[in-house]
Amino acid sequence: DEDFIRGACREYVAAVSDFYGGEALVCYASKAFSCKEMYRIANAEKMGADVVSGGELYTALAAGFPAGKIYFHGNNKTKKEIEYALKNGVHALVADSLSEIELIASVAARVKKTAPIMLRLNPGIEAHTHHYIRTAAVDSKFGLAVGSGDAFRAAGRVIQDPNLAFVGLHTHIGSQIFELEPYGLVTGVFVNLAERLLREYGAETPEFNFGGGAGVRYTQEDKPFAFRGLVKFIADSVKTETAKAGLKKPRLVLEPGRSIVAEGGLTLYTVGVVKEIPGVKKYVCIDGGMFDNPRYALYQAKYEMVLANRANDTDTEKVTLAGKCCESGDIIIDGGQLARAQRGDLVAVFTTGAYNFSMASNYNRNAVPPAVMVKDGAARLIVKPQTWAQIAARDV
Amino acid sequence: DEDFIRGACREYVAAVSDFYGGEALVCYASKAFSCKEMYRIANAEKMGADVVSGGELYTALAAGFPAGKIYFHGNNKTKKEIEYALKNGVHALVADSLSEIELIASVAARVKKTAPIMLRLNPGIEAHTHHYIRTAAVDSKFGLAVGSGDAFRAAGRVIQDPNLAFVGLHTHIGSQIFELEPYGLVTGVFVNLAERLLREYGAETPEFNFGGGAGVRYTQEDKPFAFRGLVKFIADSVKTETAKAGLKKPRLVLEPGRSIVAEGGLTLYTVGVVKEIPGVKKYVCIDGGMFDNPRYALYQAKYEMVLANRANDTDTEKVTLAGKCCESGDIIIDGGQLARAQRGDLVAVFTTGAYNFSMASNYNRNAVPPAVMVKDGAARLIVKPQTWAQIAARDV
Repeated sequence: DEDFIRGACREYVAAVSDFYGGEALVCYASKAFSCKEMYRIANAEKMGADVVSGGELYTALAAGFPAGKIYFHGNNKTKKEIEYALKNGVHALVADSLSEIELIASVAARVKKTAPIMLRLNPGIEAHTHHYIRTAAVDSKFGLAVGSGDAFRAAGRVIQDPNLAFVGLHTHIGSQIFELEPYGLVTGVFVNLAERLLREYGAETPEFNFGGGAGVRYTQEDKPFAFRGLVKFIADSVKTETAKAGLKKPRLVLEPGRSIVAEGGLTLYTVGVVKEIPGVKKYVCIDGGMFDNPRYALYQAKYEMVLANRANDTDTEKVTLAGKCCESGDIIIDGGQLARAQRGDLVAVFTTGAYNFSMASNYNRNAVPPAVMVKDGAARLIVKPQTWAQIAARDV
Repeated sequence: DEDFIRGACREYVAAVSDFYGGEALVCYASKAFSCKEMYRIANAEKMGADVVSGGELYTALAAGFPAGKIYFHGNNKTKKEIEYALKNGVHALVADSLSEIELIASVAARVKKTAPIMLRLNPGIEAHTHHYIRTAAVDSKFGLAVGSGDAFRAAGRVIQDPNLAFVGLHTHIGSQIFELEPYGLVTGVFVNLAERLLREYGAETPEFNFGGGAGVRYTQEDKPFAFRGLVKFIADSVKTETAKAGLKKPRLVLEPGRSIVAEGGLTLYTVGVVKEIPGVKKYVCIDGGMFDNPRYALYQAKYEMVLANRANDTDTEKVTLAGKCCESGDIIIDGGQLARAQRGDLVAVFTTGAYNFSMASNYNRNAVPPAVMVKDGAARLIVKPQTWAQIAARDV
């Protein structure tokens, strides 16, 4: 739904402009849904992009996205990816560890480029849905621990190397967050580290990057989240805290992904077998499954659905929406309300715009479904259907 | 490991021949690892093949596998898949429900072919690893419930339709099974139904298909399973029970998949970042992850590993093997023993021959790794590496 997606982009971009009043960039976290058209839309909406692999960077560049607005993330970039990113001139490599800084430095020396490095911190704050934790260091493969001094040492390493440029600080504290407070804690962590870097190295911290994590509405249990309010909260906290600490106002960077595309997408399935196991449950089987949406299998993620060709039919029943893979766990919705479905009916599953296409597989050699963008009653293909021959194309 | 894979094929084929003494077929359940070379090997080893999608059937046929030795499974075959299977003359469509039988019958009438139908039963027996349950009908999207009479009605429907040919009965009672008894219960279910079909319709049941499910060794906790003993147990039970019931000896079909390829495969990763979170854990990050092996993320599956370039190094430590995806849950092994690893070392994760390549995705637009077959010290590519351009090839 192009209007939804562009609307979400504009809400973020306008909010940053309205509330921060300084240099800022909203980056589309493209891992949520990466395809050429999404980079074109993000670019048209004056956003940057966050990529997490050579494949995402390749796609962005192939779509004409300016490298200078790309942040390259990841806990374990390969040498090939780093070289590719440096040669193409990405705005920042978001380094995840001291080991990665050394690798970036060695590649930068080899290709004779200055490497722009932002540091991903493990700030000891981890937020999920409706709670967060605060510790010395979160148990995560991501980031430089602030509590242990690793983050400070890494920043010093970058600042003192003339072949590296220190771009700033980044963290990402979780997904499906519905509260503001943990973002305020992040500001505190950034400001403390930036103060210390200024004091000890005379170095400014040019950018504060808060990552993403804003919650979206998968079901009615998820209360809609005002992204404008989130941006205002972060912007205010950065302005206040940096001023209080006597720091130069940094460039503010946000990286929403899920909240740009999740509710802007739905998946349309065709009903095949409808099977009732008396006294157990009723299965409605569709021509998709965990190969196009593995999120129930992975996280027991919840979705809602409607019978799309009889969307006003209120005579619903509780059914399990199951896929066509040869696996019992191949479920999309385990116990959801649906009008009485028959073979040939269409089921729409909502909020599948993020982490569905991007996680799709060829499990059971099923084909990844195409993606279609709709706007003003017209539809256009943005990812073509996959053929069986394409699935087998790399087989020798 | 071609020797392992062919050895497993031969163990099954020899055991069926040794113990059954009648017509029998071992089918490779290709969903475990589907690529052209695996169908060539299965064919050379005089096996049939079980496919579960149009994509798998396409691959088998493209590899020259004879359609007459293919069983087409799945709980929700599409019209296109059924037509493709019928036109190519597969040995049997394994129908999962009354609804599917109707669809097959209608497609068969349209393409003017007799449709060979085997029935997948829900026998009320479900086995996992070291236990099994017996109920009227297992909660599963698969199969025709025996207890409710659905299975009998479906068989009658097939037997009485001159455009359908009744091939026999099938079930698959689970995965990673390490005990024999549940397979004996299946024989009882098959024999009861076959007796009733003979009595009420005068119809023979030509084939008994026991599916797969034999457990493999992922870790030292999994005790090696003697497939020969499993085959003997099933063969004996079929011979004894059918003779006792006065039934003609059916063709015996087995469908091993995991036990053919799982232990015949390993995944080789290169170590990148090694990160210790003091007091929490040590992460060894590799150039793969849940995009090539999602089984820990999906099932908390357990694996064992070794530092392949220092395989005899006994100075091991407990580490978490983590991937390169931007997701905290992107773990391959959470707490396994590994020699002290550094960037550039190679890690081999064992028993990844089944349900790794076949479940691989392009999550984060990472490329699916290639597959290499080894034999007698030589290696040959059987699935080519995927390029970034190929990942983006369907993007408009």
